[in-house]
Order: sequence, then C-alpha cells, then structure tokens
Amino acid sequence: MVWKVRAAGSGERLAQARELDRADPLASLRPEFRPPASGAIYLNGNSLGQLPTRTLARLGRVADQEWGGQLVRAWPDWIDLPVKVGDRLAADLLGARPGEVAVADSTSVNLYKCVAAVLAREPSRRVLITDDQNFPSDRYVLQGLAGSLGADLWVLAADPITGLDLDLLVSALDERVAAICLSQVAYRSAAVIDMAAVNQAAHRVGALTVWDLCHSVGALPIQLHETGADLAVGCSYKYLHAGPGAPAFLYVRRELQGELQQPIWGWFGCARQFAMEPDFTPAAGIRSFLTGTPPVLGVVAVQEGAALVAEAGIARVRAKSLALTSYAQQLIGQQLVRLGFALASPSAADERGAHLALRHAQAYPLCRMLRERELVVTDFREPDVIRLGLAPLSTSFEDVCAAIDRIAQVAGDSNHPDAPSLRSRVT
Amino acid sequence: MVWKVRAAGSGERLAQARELDRADPLASLRPEFRPPASGAIYLNGNSLGQLPTRTLARLGRVADQEWGGQLVRAWPDWIDLPVKVGDRLAADLLGARPGEVAVADSTSVNLYKCVAAVLAREPSRRVLITDDQNFPSDRYVLQGLAGSLGADLWVLAADPITGLDLDLLVSALDERVAAICLSQVAYRSAAVIDMAAVNQAAHRVGALTVWDLCHSVGALPIQLHETGADLAVGCSYKYLHAGPGAPAFLYVRRELQGELQQPIWGWFGCARQFAMEPDFTPAAGIRSFLTGTPPVLGVVAVQEGAALVAEAGIARVRAKSLALTSYAQQLIGQQLVRLGFALASPSAADERGAHLALRHAQAYPLCRMLRERELVVTDFREPDVIRLGLAPLSTSFEDVCAAIDRIAQVAGDSNHPDAPSLRSRVT
Repeated sequence: MVWKVRAAGSGERLAQARELDRADPLASLRPEFRPPASGAIYLNGNSLGQLPTRTLARLGRVADQEWGGQLVRAWPDWIDLPVKVGDRLAADLLGARPGEVAVADSTSVNLYKCVAAVLAREPSRRVLITDDQNFPSDRYVLQGLAGSLGADLWVLAADPITGLDLDLLVSALDERVAAICLSQVAYRSAAVIDMAAVNQAAHRVGALTVWDLCHSVGALPIQLHETGADLAVGCSYKYLHAGPGAPAFLYVRRELQGELQQPIWGWFGCARQFAMEPDFTPAAGIRSFLTGTPPVLGVVAVQEGAALVAEAGIARVRAKSLALTSYAQQLIGQQLVRLGFALASPSAADERGAHLALRHAQAYPLCRMLRERELVVTDFREPDVIRLGLAPLSTSFEDVCAAIDRIAQVAGDSNHPDAPSLRSRVT
Repeated sequence: MVWKVRAAGSGERLAQARELDRADPLASLRPEFRPPASGAIYLNGNSLGQLPTRTLARLGRVADQEWGGQLVRAWPDWIDLPVKVGDRLAADLLGARPGEVAVADSTSVNLYKCVAAVLAREPSRRVLITDDQNFPSDRYVLQGLAGSLGADLWVLAADPITGLDLDLLVSALDERVAAICLSQVAYRSAAVIDMAAVNQAAHRVGALTVWDLCHSVGALPIQLHETGADLAVGCSYKYLHAGPGAPAFLYVRRELQGELQQPIWGWFGCARQFAMEPDFTPAAGIRSFLTGTPPVLGVVAVQEGAALVAEAGIARVRAKSLALTSYAQQLIGQQLVRLGFALASPSAADERGAHLALRHAQAYPLCRMLRERELVVTDFREPDVIRLGLAPLSTSFEDVCAAIDRIAQVAGDSNHPDAPSLRSRVT
C-alpha cells in the first residue's frame, strides 16, 4: 500500500499521519513499550530496541523470585531456556524447525562457532566468502578464523545501496568455497538479499551458507528451512527488544547437526552435563552448539521480546514496516531531498529491511544536533550516512512525520546564511 | 581462630552459634541479601550466590531508566563497563593492575580465548596441562582446543581431596608445554593450590599459566600480579553474587597483552570500533580480548556484587570463611562422622576454599531428601559427594549449626531400622 502524501504544511501532514496510525492494526502494541525519557523521537530501533514494559516486570520477577527466592532450585526451569526460547524463535520468527535454534553468547561468538564448524567439516574447502558491506564484526570474525585456521577470506565488492550482486557471487563460487557468510539485511543500507537464491548457489558448489539475521529478525519473515539455509546467527537487541547486549541466537539445519562440531566445547554443550565425565561427548542436536552457563536474565528478555513480536504476527509486522518506510520515503522526497539528502537504501520498499539510510554531506553534525536538541535520535555511519530505524512495533506514523519535519527544520536552519555553521558545532 | 564446640544438645549449640554471629564483623551484611523463599538453609553459594537486594534495585533502574529511558544514549556510559568493572575486580579482589581485567562472555568462552592465544604465541609449544580434578567444562574446552589446533592435552592425576601434587606437576614440565590450566580452588574438594609455586614452575620452562578462579574469586584474596600469574578467567555467579549465568571475567598480564592475540575477533575488540574499517586491528590492552556487545544488565550485576565483597574487604571475607568452614568441620566431626560421613576436603582450613565436601554412601538420596523436606539446600557430585557451600557474606554460624543438625537428623532417621530406606526414596 502506498499513500499519496499531500504537499502540505506540518499541520495537515500531522493529521494524515494520525489517520494512518488510527488505521494501523498494530497501534495497540505501542503502549507495551516504556516511553523514552526525552522528548526526542526515537528512530534508532535498528540499533537498540525499546524496552517492553512486560520485560521490565518479568526481569524483576525472575531476579527477585527465581534467583532470589528459589536460587539453584530454579535451575530445572532455567536449564532448557536456551533451546526452549530457541524453539519459539524458530517457529514464530525464523521459519525453522524444532531443535534447530538456541539462544547463546553474542552474535560474533556464535558466528565464530558456526564458521569454524563449517571449516572443520571439509578440510579441502578453504575459502570463506563475504561482502564488503557486511557488518564489520562479522568480517573481523571471518578474518580471524581465516588467519588462524589457514583459510582464505574473499570479500566481494557490494553496492553500498543495493548490496551484493548475485551474479558476482555466483561467479566467485567453486568447490574451494566452504561457506558464504552474508547479512540478510545490510546494516547500512538495509538492502535485502535473496536468501533462497544464495542458498541454492552455495549448494550447487557444495558450500554452506551462514546467515547474519541481526537486522532482519523481528522485522521481516524469515524462511530458513524453506529456503534451505544451513546456519544462521543473529542478535536480540534490535527488533526483538531484548535489551543492550542481550544474548544472541544460532541456527543449524537439523541434517547438518550430526556432521558439524563447533570448537568451543563446554559443559552446556556436552551429552551428560552433570556426569562430569573425563571426556567430552557432544550433546545431541543444537545443544552441542552451546558452551557455558546461559545468561538467564538475558534469555528471558529474549523470550519476552520475541513473544511480543510473535503476538503481533511477523507478517503484520512486515506489512507495517513496509508502510512505515514507504511513508518515510515519500516525506523524504518531499521535504529532505531539496536540503541535500539522498536516499541511500533501495528505493523499492520490499528490497529493504526496517530502516532507511540517508546520505548528506553534513550527516555527522546533523545527527549530533538532532540528538543534542532533543529532536530525533538517529545514528550516524561513516562517512556521511544517517540511519532512520523504524522499529515496526514501537514507531508510529506520527513519529515518522514529526521526525522528518524536525530533520527538515534543523537542516534548513543550518543552511540559512545567518545560522552558525554545522561545521563549527562539531569542533 | 578455632572454637571448641561443646558436645551438647541442639539448644546449647544454637546458643553458641548465635554468639559467634554476634561477634562476626560481617554479620551486618547479611541483610543485604534477599532471603530465600523456602525455610531450607541455603548452603549452595558455591554454585549460585544469593541475590543482593541492591542488585535487584540496580537492575530495575538500569532496565527502566537507562535502557528504557535513555536507550542508545546510555551507550557512552555502558561501553566502558567491561573494563571499568574489570578494573574494580582487579584492584579489590584479584590483585591485578588497571587494564588487566575485563568482564565478558562465559568462563568457558574466555578460557578458550586465553588458551588459544597462548597456543598461537609459540607454535613449537604444543602441550596443554591440566588435572583430572579440574572442572569438566575447563577440561572440555582444553580437549576441544587440543583437537582443533593440533596440541596434546596432558591430564595429570590429582588427589580427589588434596588436589594436584606440585612435584608431579613439576616433573611433567618441559619446553613443549604452552600452558598450565588449573583451578585455584578445586570445584569438588575446595583444595587450594599454591598459585605462586605453579607460576614459578611454569616460567622455569617458559610456559604460561591460565587460572580458573571460579571457586576462589570473592572467597579468598587472590594475588595475580604478585604471584606472577599470566592469564586467568572466572565466573561471577558464585561468591560475586551476580546472578545465574552472569558474565565472566578474564585477566591477561599487561606484559603479555601485546604478544597474545585471541582468536574470536569482533567489534568490541578492535581498535576503532565505529570506524567500521575493512581490516581488523586489535584494540590496545585488555580490550583486544573482548568480542561482541557486552551484556549490560549482567555487567552491572557483577559490578554490584563485587562492590559488596569489596566493601566487606576480601581479607575479612577470608577470615570469616575460614571461621565458618572450621566451625562446620568441628560440628561434622561431632555429629556426622558417626553417621557415615567423611570430610572430602583438606582438613586444614587454609588449604581449602569456602565450601566443604562430604562423602557418604547415600549422598545422592540424602541430598535430595534434604531439599525435598525443605531442610538444607546443598548439592551432589557424582558418585558420593555432598558439597556444603558456606558463602562468607550470606551464611551465618547459626545457618551452619542448624544445617548440620538437620543433616544429622535426616541421616540418623534414615539409618533407623524402622525408617523407609534411603534407596526406596530415589526410585
């Protein structure tokens, strides 16, 4: 669905935004989130999702009554949480089967485990593939693995806006490739890559795929099983609203679990955890990808946040997300392009995730001014990108409307010859 | 100090225990902990420490006001927490210097990082040494590393009660050894090994030490720097009272930081995190041992728990711990030995940590009955060990007195010919 945003003053625009909010079937979920303390409009859910009030209550209960009250006697309930919450993620958000997903560690540690397991599987395959628009931490993990395990890392050049070209990827593949490691949604431009096509291309040469779902989980439907994805990792603190540094998850396709062994062996990944046996025997299934004691408070925050998205229904979440970004895109066209902004995300809504990237020569000082003046919280990415994260559950059309107005105001004021220059503000 | 516990009925014993509590300079800290929900006496702080009420309050504030209220704008405060809290641990509890400790990941993941870094340092050294009484997860991590990096793991036979014999260790050392990986306090028997002697022995052959401090941190003074320890890891959920699965810490001696590179590269371990550069450059100092986004709630729980121990003062904590375990030992001698129990910890208080191990032929059903009847929460370790964890800050002498009475009661009842047999209760 596409709205014709009337070229109008802010009063009329606001009225239209409110109309869109009234028609939004997910609007009723917005009060589930604790409002930010400042009056600034929060458009940074692509970095850190807002706090669900139910999560605050649940964390209090788990800390007070379970940890405080039950102590070790709560472990029988806690011990299966990583796979129990993993199963919910699998069913509700990832299109995966039971026993394929677990909550554990950080995204980077999980990526290390997954890719190391793939490299160990077939020693003749010594090439890892990623692209230069992939999230830096992913590229660093791969670089480290390549160095320590004697593999080559091929970093393909991707378009900063539209992402990796599939033909380029296909042309790079041969039987030396162990794994293709890509983000489904690009962290900068929000470009979505065709997961099914990449999986097929990988399998044609016998390679496996390892997906980073950080910017897609909770924002759009993911079909790991149906598209034939092999492994995946992702974080929970963006569109799953699980809090700063909450634990990540990993997925390993069931058929591969028997032949992949991850390198960080620990007691939560072993078959008989409390037998305290001399030799490590990996647990069956996805549990073998666990290592240490799970962070219980973090895992329950993932459980709560994921349940909220599941309640909304991921198809409806995506529908609202497409509506929000399309709406923002039209306002940007009307109000911001003339002020020197350019969209740095794919122009078709269904080719991008839940955020939008804007280029502007003064992106850094603008981003800073918007925060300092308590107007809009966005983020800056080197050298000239502002990202607007439109978290589907917690962002209203009115938020988008007001934020674009405020950005236009600040950028317009700053362009005025009498205004203190943007440059002078960042020294 | 040693008390002569009078052979007396429970009334008189209780009076004496209360006397000891009145004289305890740390007794005033017990109200800092949330009382367990059940009337069972909690002697399992060696597994999971009790909840400090200040931590509950702080977690609520951080979740509500920082995450919920400030969102990404709290990151400038959060981002340095891993090293800031690490510095407090270093100064107050670990005898380490600033910049040598960070809070991150789980103990097992940290051990992996540390030992992998040591193995990469000098490729000619291909032997890892541990002992068969070391915590299973540690042994599994080492086994996994040895297998994947082509090293040999030598598992020395240690005495189940007194631990690893130093002469045996010394005789095993030569220039092939990369690292000696031991627990300072044994997880089963609580035997303390001489850290300084092990460090010296390691250095004589050019090997490095990697210590597991899980059962010592917060229970006894640790002198990493003074004893020449090279690396260390440890958890925060026992005597640091930071909650189930709270993040662990790691220590790397300053002089080694430049020559050790851990294998799991990530954005929190790189020099210019937000430059998003194509190539990984490790951060200076201990930060290079970080990987992914730190679990903020977990790190603040470590901060609170460690501050509580620091307030008590680790020397006073150790003094109370020695008093508690000595007191328990005497009661065990008077009341439990005749019921088939035997101490399975070193008999000298200063040769053990903050828990006591007891052997009993019916250890498993006894342990279970003590929990089921809401009498004492302890834990069982295969095949016949009950551990009594006497967390120094949260355990009173009265707790110890009443717990031993209750254990004697249950074990005595069960020995009675008319009693339902212990065996029948566990089927």
